[in-house]
Amino acid sequence: MSINTFGHLFRVTTWGESHGPGLGATVDGCPPGVAIDEGAIQHWLDRRRPGQNRYTTQRREADAVRILSGVFEGRTTGTPVQLMIDNTDQRSKDYGDIRDKFRPGHADITYWQKYGHRDYRGGGRSSARETAARVAAGGLARAALNMLAPEIAIQGYLVQIGPHGIDRGRFDAEEIERNPFWCPDAQAAAQWGGYLDGLRKSGNSAGAAIEVVARGVPAGLGAPVYGKLDTDLAAAMMSINAVKGVEIGEGMAAAALTGEDNADEIFMGNDGQPVYSSNHAGGILGGISTGQEIVVRFAVKPTSSILRPRRTITRSGEAAEIVTRGRHDPCVGIRAVPVGEAMMACVILDHLLLHRAQMGGGVGHTPGRIG
Amino acid sequence: MSINTFGHLFRVTTWGESHGPGLGATVDGCPPGVAIDEGAIQHWLDRRRPGQNRYTTQRREADAVRILSGVFEGRTTGTPVQLMIDNTDQRSKDYGDIRDKFRPGHADITYWQKYGHRDYRGGGRSSARETAARVAAGGLARAALNMLAPEIAIQGYLVQIGPHGIDRGRFDAEEIERNPFWCPDAQAAAQWGGYLDGLRKSGNSAGAAIEVVARGVPAGLGAPVYGKLDTDLAAAMMSINAVKGVEIGEGMAAAALTGEDNADEIFMGNDGQPVYSSNHAGGILGGISTGQEIVVRFAVKPTSSILRPRRTITRSGEAAEIVTRGRHDPCVGIRAVPVGEAMMACVILDHLLLHRAQMGGGVGHTPGRIG
Amino acid sequence: MSINTFGHLFRVTTWGESHGPGLGATVDGCPPGVAIDEGAIQHWLDRRRPGQNRYTTQRREADAVRILSGVFEGRTTGTPVQLMIDNTDQRSKDYGDIRDKFRPGHADITYWQKYGHRDYRGGGRSSARETAARVAAGGLARAALNMLAPEIAIQGYLVQIGPHGIDRGRFDAEEIERNPFWCPDAQAAAQWGGYLDGLRKSGNSAGAAIEVVARGVPAGLGAPVYGKLDTDLAAAMMSINAVKGVEIGEGMAAAALTGEDNADEIFMGNDGQPVYSSNHAGGILGGISTGQEIVVRFAVKPTSSILRPRRTITRSGEAAEIVTRGRHDPCVGIRAVPVGEAMMACVILDHLLLHRAQMGGGVGHTPGRIG
Amino acid sequence: MSINTFGHLFRVTTWGESHGPGLGATVDGCPPGVAIDEGAIQHWLDRRRPGQNRYTTQRREADAVRILSGVFEGRTTGTPVQLMIDNTDQRSKDYGDIRDKFRPGHADITYWQKYGHRDYRGGGRSSARETAARVAAGGLARAALNMLAPEIAIQGYLVQIGPHGIDRGRFDAEEIERNPFWCPDAQAAAQWGGYLDGLRKSGNSAGAAIEVVARGVPAGLGAPVYGKLDTDLAAAMMSINAVKGVEIGEGMAAAALTGEDNADEIFMGNDGQPVYSSNHAGGILGGISTGQEIVVRFAVKPTSSILRPRRTITRSGEAAEIVTRGRHDPCVGIRAVPVGEAMMACVILDHLLLHRAQMGGGVGHTPGRIG
Repeated sequence: MSINTFGHLFRVTTWGESHGPGLGATVDGCPPGVAIDEGAIQHWLDRRRPGQNRYTTQRREADAVRILSGVFEGRTTGTPVQLMIDNTDQRSKDYGDIRDKFRPGHADITYWQKYGHRDYRGGGRSSARETAARVAAGGLARAALNMLAPEIAIQGYLVQIGPHGIDRGRFDAEEIERNPFWCPDAQAAAQWGGYLDGLRKSGNSAGAAIEVVARGVPAGLGAPVYGKLDTDLAAAMMSINAVKGVEIGEGMAAAALTGEDNADEIFMGNDGQPVYSSNHAGGILGGISTGQEIVVRFAVKPTSSILRPRRTITRSGEAAEIVTRGRHDPCVGIRAVPVGEAMMACVILDHLLLHRAQMGGGVGHTPGRIG
Repeated sequence: MSINTFGHLFRVTTWGESHGPGLGATVDGCPPGVAIDEGAIQHWLDRRRPGQNRYTTQRREADAVRILSGVFEGRTTGTPVQLMIDNTDQRSKDYGDIRDKFRPGHADITYWQKYGHRDYRGGGRSSARETAARVAAGGLARAALNMLAPEIAIQGYLVQIGPHGIDRGRFDAEEIERNPFWCPDAQAAAQWGGYLDGLRKSGNSAGAAIEVVARGVPAGLGAPVYGKLDTDLAAAMMSINAVKGVEIGEGMAAAALTGEDNADEIFMGNDGQPVYSSNHAGGILGGISTGQEIVVRFAVKPTSSILRPRRTITRSGEAAEIVTRGRHDPCVGIRAVPVGEAMMACVILDHLLLHRAQMGGGVGHTPGRIG
Repeated sequence: MSINTFGHLFRVTTWGESHGPGLGATVDGCPPGVAIDEGAIQHWLDRRRPGQNRYTTQRREADAVRILSGVFEGRTTGTPVQLMIDNTDQRSKDYGDIRDKFRPGHADITYWQKYGHRDYRGGGRSSARETAARVAAGGLARAALNMLAPEIAIQGYLVQIGPHGIDRGRFDAEEIERNPFWCPDAQAAAQWGGYLDGLRKSGNSAGAAIEVVARGVPAGLGAPVYGKLDTDLAAAMMSINAVKGVEIGEGMAAAALTGEDNADEIFMGNDGQPVYSSNHAGGILGGISTGQEIVVRFAVKPTSSILRPRRTITRSGEAAEIVTRGRHDPCVGIRAVPVGEAMMACVILDHLLLHRAQMGGGVGHTPGRIG
Repeated sequence: MSINTFGHLFRVTTWGESHGPGLGATVDGCPPGVAIDEGAIQHWLDRRRPGQNRYTTQRREADAVRILSGVFEGRTTGTPVQLMIDNTDQRSKDYGDIRDKFRPGHADITYWQKYGHRDYRGGGRSSARETAARVAAGGLARAALNMLAPEIAIQGYLVQIGPHGIDRGRFDAEEIERNPFWCPDAQAAAQWGGYLDGLRKSGNSAGAAIEVVARGVPAGLGAPVYGKLDTDLAAAMMSINAVKGVEIGEGMAAAALTGEDNADEIFMGNDGQPVYSSNHAGGILGGISTGQEIVVRFAVKPTSSILRPRRTITRSGEAAEIVTRGRHDPCVGIRAVPVGEAMMACVILDHLLLHRAQMGGGVGHTPGRIG
């Protein structure tokens, strides 16, 4: 069954194909009174926009968002917000050769098998272009968070491209906005540039790992057992195109630790709030936020559209070879940073609303006092 | 908000605490006519049951399941199935010392902060005992799959305990049922035994990584964009207690690959179905199954209940030290194998039902023919 | 698809058949800290209990409820509450004759056609016995309302049995608890007694209309467009066995009014809150509560199990005649009163939680001030 | 919480205000391969379009629908279908006087109280204009039904305007399309014309009752207990603006019947399918369709926007009088006919999909054979 909605209370339904008239997000459940306009959402879309440097696709979409409903006199009304982005640079003919041949690593073959009818132009619904709608919705979520919990800050960055990871010892938050890779390690950024140039020239592509951190999230968000904060974050990130793994805090590396090493010991902070000796948990215990940084990481596979010939079959079952021309990102992971941030914003907001449904009070109201 | 349900159509709601009268799963949406009895579900519960060897908790629960509704004359009726397991070996007094001190790595502190009132006996709702209800529901899901798609086989096994991974070159499926670790590599199993004995004696614990594979899943299950098969699998696995990372196919390692290496090339098989040169995708493209093996991996953090003293605070905010006595698994990852299998069974069944809702026809009916 | 859950945030899943081991309600989403014990829920169940007078079925069920989870030290913990009622007086043999013959007006034939397999004992899942689980859940909802909004009072009563309606001029709320019909008009109650005695002796049965009123509900509950308060009330009441019509305020009679007559004019009350000249709207405008009484009415068809012979067919398609012996209510509408109250309590609570999710603040917090 | 979605699998989310840029329906879960284009949907919208005769509002909206996604080469792809209708005749200034005064019978006051911020232009989100989006979605549902179950026919008509009901003895289905009231009784239609002319001249309005019938619906659709077909129909109809009552089959009149009278006796038909002596049940037993006609009725209150002065208050709490000028339907019930049909189509389709999810097989596949 087609299920294009995520969120429990702040519910985002995305729609649209890469080469139709447009795409968008129907956002239901936003609190009223949130100050928002198209410019505020455009700010986030521009970060995801392609064609800004040589490491992302040269497709040039304005990606201009329009707010079609749910906002009146500059503030949300509490009714559904329709965010629409027109498709303007489609060049359908570029994609004519993929009508009959299934591109390896793409959803061409599974869409065909499942539905028996698919919009083959540029991947149709499976195109990464769908993530623009998520970023737009995330922009609204950020505005709502700004009203409800302005102390929350969300930031994403790359921690790995291909085999090259950052050195955490050189982590510099200021650096993230200074290079085309949202890389917190200037030295790694330089290395990545050379690595990607080489791949691009040879018609190849690279995977990446992205980390998204949310600071200032109050303790108490999330809930047992299936509505855990980490469950929803895992689903949110895994739903992004090309993502193959999701980690919270220590992630897969937790398997290698001992219980003694993994325990985040607890102390009382000077402000009467608990503090922890470490954050192996990634800010979540038992599905509920601890008040520490929420830390999520996800891996994006290398772009499947490459210029290196790959063997495949046609719709009629004949063996073929395919070279995917067109304008593709040598590393889709780069533009996944604003997408991951958007998903984090949506999930955190959703859980803030769920929390106040059950617990009442203001944001971050938790009845269990310590001390 | 408390959200203890998972699944779209095959919906499982688990309930119960570790030290209350019992726990269970309310399962709605099962097709009628599925042959099932308590013995068939008990089979799977027995695999998860503690106290079977020295590597799992010595708590001795019979974990006997009762079917209270939805089954008549040995077959499901299509109405809700209530699966209940009584708690029989509770020893509440063992847990008295955790009433006031928050155990590091546990949900004690977050439950307290969120709710201001918690069942502190043995973790209450956050206890891994909750997973027994999932295994029971998974037993029903397996029976339904057996009726609808008997070619599907689901198997889980450990691939890592602590820093020690298996050698894939020695992978032997037969070995999995022969050692206490569900380990497909006899040599690794021997190593793990020694490693865990050492940890147990020193009052420490270890993490683990589990892989769950589903074979025989037809192409076409899953859907864009938020109801992807991998999205639901990620959520299902991340919702299990102590899980910190989830991977599909290549997982986090996909970040390090090039597009050329990562492409699973496509060929026509002898039976007229597509075959692939490799399975980096883990059997899922664009959120939809390819017909290859579905491969999921997840990491379980080391048991947080250890005999090594850890620093913490009390409910009144005073510094304290805690040693968690009681009967705990030195590696909860071991018993997570049947839990992961159960979640896989539930998700696959759910998607089979979703698929036939949208596409009609029998299981695995996909209108898009190749060749 | 089997869908046995209602509610958005306060979610009730009922399970169980009339002649299995028991039935119950799995209630998820209740706020923590609600004072509750089995006695408090039993209070409401006892009002629905059969066998209390000659106008209800002589089946004698203790209908003793047990709380199996989600409550600790006398208060809810915020995790799922399992409410279970054992079946104790089943007499399966009474129902043997309905195994093969479909009872007109019952779900026997549709369950058979849909599922091909049904628990035919006493109606199985379609038995009105299922409503006991709703009443139990409603008892918990009332306790939660009592904590969150103690000014809310919910009361149901019969306004019609067979062709005999009450005279609104004789409405006396005190009278409701004094007669076996929850009838606010003593004269009508007397008439109903005679009418039902006659029907019972002749092996016949009667329909009824029930009105349920909620007082003290703050303005602002509900929402456009599908989550309207009246939408959810209509669904809640129509989901009760044997209900064939639901009305809000003026109900079906609204068709006959003019706009001038139907307008509830608005004034400022002495307490600075709006007051209305009338309540044709039943306390709901645009799906949102006005602060007036919420007024819902529903009609229950006459008991289909009657001693008068009716023509039907058997499972093998042969013509037959059926007389439904056993212990049946001559008017199921009587026992529908506590059920309707329970559904009202659940829906109001659910919307209180939804409202504070979106709007924050305490119960009844509405940002739009008048005056 | 704002909840603008209905449907379990065929899910319709409507968005938009009466005086914003446009409104629409985001439809998720449609099967692929459904032949559809804008003209096919426009056909149904044109039936609802205002300004077609003197009994409906003179607002002249083209109500031209555009399909923005989910359809490729004339057929649905199985991904979300975005149906958008631009607002073209808004005349915002007409509505300036309702910014501060709350119109009795409208949602003005409740939206204000709930949200503290509302789009007051023409009712904003609470405008009956929202129903255009439902009719568009219903057009798609009809196309899907036409593919899956072409024997299903859905038809609505008015059975009452003001105090004047039709005479069922004069029921003539052919007549429905011949008069401006979708009235199956030519004599009643004539009477209604005169009645409405009188009301319109005096600045007043009338209520109405609409009946919607679905023929050819196979037995077996629907399910216990909260996903009953009648539950979903009641919710669907009650969610339409101005609806105050919903009836299935006998409806509220069921209260007045005896069990003997109400029993729809069962026989075997010549085609080996059960037939019934009557249809008091409205085609639904135990929440599941019987194969008879599905019969739903609902009452629409009189248009609240009238030229007769009514007393009200302003936002600042001062007493006021209001006359609602502008272009309003003297009887909104007339245009509710296509809306009711649309909701019926959506609900039936949704239950067809649910049914085949659980039962498999083709549409109407029910495993329980009779005879």
